[in-house]
Amino acid sequence: MGPHPAVAAIRLAVRRVLHDVLHDHARPGASQSRPLVLAACSGGADSMALASALAFEARKLPLRAGAVTVDHGLQSGSTARALDVAARLRAFGLDPVEALGVTVGRQGGPEAAAREARYAALSAASESLGAVAVLLGHTRDDQAETVLLGLARGSGTRSLSGMAAVSGPGGRYRRPFLLLDRDTTRQACLAQGIDVWEDPHNADPSYTRARVRHEALPVLEKSLGRGVVASLARTAQLFRDDADALDQWAAAAGHEARVAGDPDGALEVAKLRALPVAVRRRVLRAAAVGAGSPSGSLFARHVEETDRLITDWRGQGPINLPGGVEARRGNGRLVFRRATEAP
Amino acid sequence: MGPHPAVAAIRLAVRRVLHDVLHDHARPGASQSRPLVLAACSGGADSMALASALAFEARKLPLRAGAVTVDHGLQSGSTARALDVAARLRAFGLDPVEALGVTVGRQGGPEAAAREARYAALSAASESLGAVAVLLGHTRDDQAETVLLGLARGSGTRSLSGMAAVSGPGGRYRRPFLLLDRDTTRQACLAQGIDVWEDPHNADPSYTRARVRHEALPVLEKSLGRGVVASLARTAQLFRDDADALDQWAAAAGHEARVAGDPDGALEVAKLRALPVAVRRRVLRAAAVGAGSPSGSLFARHVEETDRLITDWRGQGPINLPGGVEARRGNGRLVFRRATEAP
Repeated sequence: MGPHPAVAAIRLAVRRVLHDVLHDHARPGASQSRPLVLAACSGGADSMALASALAFEARKLPLRAGAVTVDHGLQSGSTARALDVAARLRAFGLDPVEALGVTVGRQGGPEAAAREARYAALSAASESLGAVAVLLGHTRDDQAETVLLGLARGSGTRSLSGMAAVSGPGGRYRRPFLLLDRDTTRQACLAQGIDVWEDPHNADPSYTRARVRHEALPVLEKSLGRGVVASLARTAQLFRDDADALDQWAAAAGHEARVAGDPDGALEVAKLRALPVAVRRRVLRAAAVGAGSPSGSLFARHVEETDRLITDWRGQGPINLPGGVEARRGNGRLVFRRATEAP
Repeated sequence: MGPHPAVAAIRLAVRRVLHDVLHDHARPGASQSRPLVLAACSGGADSMALASALAFEARKLPLRAGAVTVDHGLQSGSTARALDVAARLRAFGLDPVEALGVTVGRQGGPEAAAREARYAALSAASESLGAVAVLLGHTRDDQAETVLLGLARGSGTRSLSGMAAVSGPGGRYRRPFLLLDRDTTRQACLAQGIDVWEDPHNADPSYTRARVRHEALPVLEKSLGRGVVASLARTAQLFRDDADALDQWAAAAGHEARVAGDPDGALEVAKLRALPVAVRRRVLRAAAVGAGSPSGSLFARHVEETDRLITDWRGQGPINLPGGVEARRGNGRLVFRRATEAP
C-alpha cells in the first residue's frame, strides 16, 4: 500500500523542486557534490508537511537536507516553542537544524516587519550554512490571500502576481506547495502523526491577512463558488507573466528613449509619448526609482502625475516625488533627479 | 444656493462626457448639427440619475437628449413598468423616449442572456433613432463587482479590466459614472425627488452578481477596509492599460512571426519561442480565434496546451481546440486550421 494521497502529494511536489535544484546545481562549476537544501519551518501544518517531505525525499537523492525555524520573539514562550520545533525537525532526520532568533522592528506594520526580519534571518542562515536552496511552505491558499491583499491596495499587476515559485538571489527561495491547498498539508501531517502548532497570529483579526483568511475568502467562496481560491492563484500566475513581459518592454523602451550621452539620463518626451500608457508609466516609475525615489513609497498617483508632463503638458513645473526626487520637463526632455542635487 | 453635492457630481460627470461626444462629432464630415444622445434607463437609481442629468445638461448644449428603457419580459408587470419608466423619462423633458421589448434567450445563463438581449436592443434603437451615443449608468460599484466576477473565473487581465468608459462601435457606449459610487446616484435621486425602482433581480441571491454585491463586497470592505471598491475599480483601469499594451505587442509579434506568403498563416516556432510567455500566449489565442475557434469557449488551458507545442516539444500530435480548430506543429511551423478543412 502506498502512502496517504496527501502525503504522496506533498512528496511529489517537493521531489519536483529538488530535481530542479539538483539540475540547477549540476552545472559545470557547481562545486558541492551533495548540496544542502533547507526547509523553513514555523511549526505549522504547511511547513511541518514540507520538512517531513524534504527529509523523506532527500534520502533518495544526492542532497543534504536541513531546516531552520525562526523565533520572532513576539509571544511569551516563543523561544521554547522554536527549540521544540527544532527538536522535532531533527527527529525527521534533518541535519543541520537551527533555531534563529530575530528582532522584529516596526517599519511598515507588524506583518511586514516580521516578514522582513524572517527573510533576513533565512537569508543569513542560508549563507552561513552554505545552502543552495530554502524551501518555503506557502500554499495555494496563501497565494490567493496575497492576491486579495494586493487587490485591496489597488496597486496593479505586479502586486497582484503573488509569490513566485522561485525567487531571491540565484533562485534561493523555492515554494513547492504553491499549487497545493492548505488542507492537503493538514491531512499529510495528520496521516503521518505529525503534531502541528498554529500561530495564534493566523487567527488574530487585528492582522489583515487573518481577516482575509477567515472572513473574506470563505464569503467569496460562498458567493462565487468553491473554485475561487484556485482562480485567484491561477490569476496570480497570469499577472506575473503579464508583468514580466511589460517590464521587459519598459526596460527596452526606457533604454531607447534615453538621450544618448546625457549625464542625467534624460528621456525624450516624443519617444515616451508614442508608448502605450502601461509601458510609459513603467518607464517613468523605473526612472524615478533609478533617481532614488523609494519603490515602496512611489504610488500610482505619483506616476500618473508625472505622466501628465507628457500627455497633458501645459508648461507645469517639476513634480515632487518621494525621496526628494523631482521630475522636470524642459526642451522636449524629461529629467528625474534628487531635488537637493539640483544646481 | 447650488444644487445638492450629489446632483452636482452626476451633472459634472455627464457634462464631461457630453463635451467629449460633441468634440468627437464636431469633426468635418460629421453631418448632424444637433446630434442625439440617449440615456439607457432601467428605472433604478443609477440610470434615473443619469437620465435626469442628461436632460439638465443637454439643454445648455447643441444636443438633443432622449432615452430608452428595456422591457426584458422576465417578470409579470414588466411591460407596465417599462411604460411607466418611459413616461417619467418624458417628464424630464427627454425626447424621443422608447420602451424596447426584448426576448431573453438562455445562452450563457440568465444574466448573460439578459445582457446580450439588452445590448442588442440598445444598439438597434441607437441606429434607428440616429443617436451618436448611448449613456450607461454603471457606477464604480458595478465596476468593482465586475472585477470580482472576473477574478472568480481566473481568466486573466482582460476579463479583469472591467467596463470601459467608452466602448462599442464608434465609441457608441459611454459610461459617465464609472468613477462615482452608487450611493451618490441614490442621493442625487433623493435630492431631486425622483422615485426609483429597484430591480428585484439585483437582490436575488440566485444571481451571482447579487451575491457579489450583497455578500462578497461588504465582507471585503470589512476585512480589507472601505477603500476596496475604489481599489478594485482603479485596478480595473490598470488591467485595461496592461491588456491594451500586451495586445498591441501580440498583434505586432503575430504579424512578425507569420511565414511570408503562407496561405495557412503558419507561424514560425523559433520566433514564437523568443517571445515572453504572456505575449506568446496572446499570439496563439489570436491565431486560434482567427482560425475560427470561438473566443468565449477558448480557455487558458487550451492556449497553454498549444503553447507546449513550442516550449515542450516532444513530437506530439495536433491539439484540438473549440470550434473544430486544430493547432499542429510541423517543419518548425505552427498552423491553426479547422480540422474539417484538413486535406
